[in-house]
Amino acid sequence: MNKIAPVFEDICKAHDLIKPLIHRTPVMTSRLINNIVEAELFFKCENFQKAGAFKFRGASHAIALLTKEEASRGVATHSSGNHAGALALAAANKGIKAYIVMPETAPQVKIDAVKAYGAEITFCKPTLEAREETLKLVVERTGATFIHPYDNSRIIAGQGTACKELLEEYPNLEIIMAPVGGGGLLSGTAISAKSMKPEIKVIAGEPKGADDAFRSFYSDKLFPSVNPKTIADGLLTSLSQLTLSIIRKNVDDILTVTEESIKQAQKLIMERMKILVEPSSAVPLAAIMENREIFSGRKVGIIVSGGNF
Amino acid sequence: MNKIAPVFEDICKAHDLIKPLIHRTPVMTSRLINNIVEAELFFKCENFQKAGAFKFRGASHAIALLTKEEASRGVATHSSGNHAGALALAAANKGIKAYIVMPETAPQVKIDAVKAYGAEITFCKPTLEAREETLKLVVERTGATFIHPYDNSRIIAGQGTACKELLEEYPNLEIIMAPVGGGGLLSGTAISAKSMKPEIKVIAGEPKGADDAFRSFYSDKLFPSVNPKTIADGLLTSLSQLTLSIIRKNVDDILTVTEESIKQAQKLIMERMKILVEPSSAVPLAAIMENREIFSGRKVGIIVSGGNF
Repeated sequence: MNKIAPVFEDICKAHDLIKPLIHRTPVMTSRLINNIVEAELFFKCENFQKAGAFKFRGASHAIALLTKEEASRGVATHSSGNHAGALALAAANKGIKAYIVMPETAPQVKIDAVKAYGAEITFCKPTLEAREETLKLVVERTGATFIHPYDNSRIIAGQGTACKELLEEYPNLEIIMAPVGGGGLLSGTAISAKSMKPEIKVIAGEPKGADDAFRSFYSDKLFPSVNPKTIADGLLTSLSQLTLSIIRKNVDDILTVTEESIKQAQKLIMERMKILVEPSSAVPLAAIMENREIFSGRKVGIIVSGGNF
Repeated sequence: MNKIAPVFEDICKAHDLIKPLIHRTPVMTSRLINNIVEAELFFKCENFQKAGAFKFRGASHAIALLTKEEASRGVATHSSGNHAGALALAAANKGIKAYIVMPETAPQVKIDAVKAYGAEITFCKPTLEAREETLKLVVERTGATFIHPYDNSRIIAGQGTACKELLEEYPNLEIIMAPVGGGGLLSGTAISAKSMKPEIKVIAGEPKGADDAFRSFYSDKLFPSVNPKTIADGLLTSLSQLTLSIIRKNVDDILTVTEESIKQAQKLIMERMKILVEPSSAVPLAAIMENREIFSGRKVGIIVSGGNF
């Protein structure tokens, strides 16, 4: 039941549910960056979201919809990144147990964050097979509900609330951008954007070194992410059938960018805007810098995915 | 005439003048940091101010008050830091020439910023004598008006507008904190705070390795800053007679902190709040962390001085 694409009404309901739990993050602008790219950019700062990333929206929504019986058994996921921290914090806020499967190679700082939120960590070998197998054992042992980081309509509906807030505040935007990894943020963003303003363009940014979404978008099948190489460590994962189908229907284009552009864009945001953003968050600005002709003179909303790095 | 302590009315007039020129910076909070220090902290984020620091307030004010004739000859200052960039930008915004004397050892990034704002740079040896001598020559040659970074009542009045905004927004604060270097920010802050709320406490933070303000405050003379050593490079300068007299009258205490605390506090702000702050900006939080008993359970406003580093 969590594999059916959400509609905008689901995102509105999600927003009502999670509003008391999340930060309504600020929208920032930079005259200097606007001058450089010759466009008007509006940065929706999910790096200021609780647990440091947009992931807290989806995680809070999925947890808010658990039945009492499910809640009593807790939630589980496998993740080495922001979803782990977000789910652990959202669960802790509701007094629910969280079981997180993490690869033994996960950065100590992410492990510490998940521990600090009181989640129970099970380590595994750093392969997708090991992660899934270990998660299966944890779920069998605990009866916890598996909350997938993006292949889950409740998660997608939660992630869509960031773009909803952005367009409520700046209804005159002409283009909305988000990075794409597993596609949860991009799916929710695109559904919100096209529902609130059908003529808006939705454009994703993706690293060239992890361009499975780009290849899947421009073919008739789903390409898995094989040996991706990028500093944008939030964008290593593959799309799912669910996110690919939503993206095909609602996204206008996916632009791929070089590592050099990502580094430049991240540096520009940090130096000029004085905010910490993770490399994944800089991918949309990198796409603007590489494709000036598309964005010139436009009002562009950008979902800044997070600030953990 | 610019060596008489400003009163709150001067700060209000300054605010009216510069409001269209400056950013009204946001006030940020962090539940996590509040939990750690067991107090309620409100960070006034001047790192988001134009040119990246509170200095733009005073510089804009001093420039707004120039006569037409003075404006036609431009402004001059010596600075290796934020005042140089702020004065250069404030002058450029008004189409006024800015002449900046910088030590040849100034960081390239600061030199580039001043150049980008179109100011004319004259380099000198890295001593106070060389700076003052070179400035004198520049002023003689150009007829420019010297705008001292802090020993100037118009600058002090401009810096006081940050605290005014903070207390307008959060009138229930019990303590206001700022770092102290030359004392311009602290002087303006203290005048605003004590005028708007006489019962409020004003407490400064200063590095132990540059504790001239602390020593001057607790004696009957002005100690110059001799061979200061601290990573808080915005706080190396000495008080002036003007700032010392304002601080003696309006500030309740100066707390000195170790380098280790400054580094810890800066890391805490950046990791938890996802904003870039320079080491000087972390000095008040370092003082809170070293003196928990003073701040426990209090509502504390902190002027975050800047984000250039």
